[in-house]
Amino acid sequence: MALIVQKYGGTSVGTLERIQAVADRVIRCKEAGDDIVVVLSAMSGETNRLLGLAQEIDENASEREKDVLVSTGEQVTIALLSIALQKKGCDAISMTGDQIRMHTDNAHGKARITDIDDHNIHAHLKDNKVVVIAGFQGRSPDNYITTLGRGGSDTTAVAIAAALKADECQIYTDVDGVYTTDPRVEPKARRLESITFEEMLEMASLGAKVLQIRAVEFAGKYNVPLRVLSSFTEGNGTLISYEGNKMESPVISGIAFNRDEASLTILGVPDKPSVAASILAPIGDANIDVDMIIQNSMGDNTADFTFTVHRNDYKRAKELLEETSSKLGAREVQGKDSLAKISIVGVGMMNHPGVAKTMFETLGDEGINMQLISTSEIKVSVVVDEKYLELAVRALHSAYNLEQ
Amino acid sequence: MALIVQKYGGTSVGTLERIQAVADRVIRCKEAGDDIVVVLSAMSGETNRLLGLAQEIDENASEREKDVLVSTGEQVTIALLSIALQKKGCDAISMTGDQIRMHTDNAHGKARITDIDDHNIHAHLKDNKVVVIAGFQGRSPDNYITTLGRGGSDTTAVAIAAALKADECQIYTDVDGVYTTDPRVEPKARRLESITFEEMLEMASLGAKVLQIRAVEFAGKYNVPLRVLSSFTEGNGTLISYEGNKMESPVISGIAFNRDEASLTILGVPDKPSVAASILAPIGDANIDVDMIIQNSMGDNTADFTFTVHRNDYKRAKELLEETSSKLGAREVQGKDSLAKISIVGVGMMNHPGVAKTMFETLGDEGINMQLISTSEIKVSVVVDEKYLELAVRALHSAYNLEQ
Repeated sequence: MALIVQKYGGTSVGTLERIQAVADRVIRCKEAGDDIVVVLSAMSGETNRLLGLAQEIDENASEREKDVLVSTGEQVTIALLSIALQKKGCDAISMTGDQIRMHTDNAHGKARITDIDDHNIHAHLKDNKVVVIAGFQGRSPDNYITTLGRGGSDTTAVAIAAALKADECQIYTDVDGVYTTDPRVEPKARRLESITFEEMLEMASLGAKVLQIRAVEFAGKYNVPLRVLSSFTEGNGTLISYEGNKMESPVISGIAFNRDEASLTILGVPDKPSVAASILAPIGDANIDVDMIIQNSMGDNTADFTFTVHRNDYKRAKELLEETSSKLGAREVQGKDSLAKISIVGVGMMNHPGVAKTMFETLGDEGINMQLISTSEIKVSVVVDEKYLELAVRALHSAYNLEQ
Repeated sequence: MALIVQKYGGTSVGTLERIQAVADRVIRCKEAGDDIVVVLSAMSGETNRLLGLAQEIDENASEREKDVLVSTGEQVTIALLSIALQKKGCDAISMTGDQIRMHTDNAHGKARITDIDDHNIHAHLKDNKVVVIAGFQGRSPDNYITTLGRGGSDTTAVAIAAALKADECQIYTDVDGVYTTDPRVEPKARRLESITFEEMLEMASLGAKVLQIRAVEFAGKYNVPLRVLSSFTEGNGTLISYEGNKMESPVISGIAFNRDEASLTILGVPDKPSVAASILAPIGDANIDVDMIIQNSMGDNTADFTFTVHRNDYKRAKELLEETSSKLGAREVQGKDSLAKISIVGVGMMNHPGVAKTMFETLGDEGINMQLISTSEIKVSVVVDEKYLELAVRALHSAYNLEQ
């Protein structure tokens, strides 16, 4: 008998019919002999509908009150699923974030979990109940309602699985697992049976948006085996754990990519240690996320400094950089706003030198110019003109034999 | 400086525009120097929408889960009003039933308030905040969400006003006060400046559905001055208190009525003390509410026994009564299902004999036959054929000079 935490996302509980289907699936697992804890999101669209109401009144509505507002979405679905389970003869009980004592800090709208009191959940499991928990929400030290931010339901599920020492945390979504790359770009993309936490983190942060990165970090930290699978079809999904699948042992597990990149370069800045901070501080102060950062010393006591941002932030970042350029007496500011980043990811590359070489050769053969390159232990990322994105992904998928 | 509890019903917060209008009204009162606590219902229609979802899954959905579900309705409106108040520069904070420690018993769907911890509310008032509280909801001893049943928001407001020793509890609704009778039946009906708790209880229970009877009882018990007024128009509404308005001092304050009455009579039952219980026990066991009860001894050791029920319960009650009739060896069961009850209500009648005589004469002059009569200290009720309802109400309104 195992203890399984199952999380169902918004599309999985988007209609009453789908809620009934979730109930059927939960009951099948329960009847197979496992203890089941369910974590739910709001019905798809509901969180946005509620936030829309708040924004109609005030675009800068208080985060505390928005948390009170949007946390109702999950409260509705936990009640409806509990009713559906009971109707089908399965004993179930709903629990809000407050009721399971999901303690968080005070950061409304993006609260961090500090502690879970698993006492209540264990008591209900002992009574042979399915416990249906509202994702995304917690309570602050002031006993106010908090939310964990978008995708917080995944984090809730992992945190509960960690607190309960569950055997597995299953994330049900509308895709049936993690793929070698986006099947919309490369139809030959293949579902992975398993992947490591580290690879998943690189895949997720690079745009393969199956799982919230925070949930993966959390699962890795507490070593909770995580499984991504579809609530609409049968199948084993993809298991995310520390081991990965040794039998499979590929050099590269997948190819992630990000559209909507933009790069900014400041040429001829003084080549001294403080210059990176001088350049990036105004960007950070404007809440603009910087992704890749590259600095080249030119040998004449000046350096060229390049970084990438989301395309939406390009215009503002360029303005800020031009101000910095005047202050530093730099030569010029350049920028490009139609770029894409492509990354090959795999723990196998740690033991296989020459992995990057295959990438560069493949892109070179296709006549694709790499504008920036950045490497880490388990990934190599390149930035290319966005128009080459699909061509590059398909060429790399084939070069690394990801279709098997 | 007074402490005022204001309760706004579902139509008053039915749209974002109306929520903004409520915010404006709250701010006007706050700026006049009063401390304001607001109690809100869900947006009109929302509670029914949510219950509809539960019923689509299970017509007999658990009361506990229905409470989790429907309590979200008020949680949405308190957040939205708080956001609207803040946007307009008024410091405000929303509080759920759980957060103000609205303790209730375990009777999900119809919970009774046991205690309120006013500590939190007082603390926020001291900080010069408007406190916006979710009506209708509380928390059980198990820390589960409870609801007080339909109209529970009125009760919440009165309970909070009592706990805070507020100077007045204002119930904002879509009518501008309590009328001498229903203006749809008698266009000359007049708004009352004031009315006593006892009169209001008689009016409310008889169908003048402005206020929940439970809230009036509660207000009377804790001597909380209650004011009914419109959230759509200006005006003083109607004050409900122990004093009433001595200056006005009318014999009759108003005329209440109930359609949809039915009467049942069992003829020739043994005239002994236990017979009423024998007749009514099966009716009560079937959850049928009995209103008027009349027993006439016939002098031959038998009695005739008549009672009224809601028309919807007529058929079932008649079946039960026929079973009882066989058991008791009664002569016959009779019934009528198209009746209406009309009542004149007023504390003044305690000191004015002859009030009932005017009623009987007036109805007699109009050729209206009274099928049942029942009296209490402050009201006289008669049951007539429903087709005479409007005629009777108008004739009595005029006979008692209620239009002034």
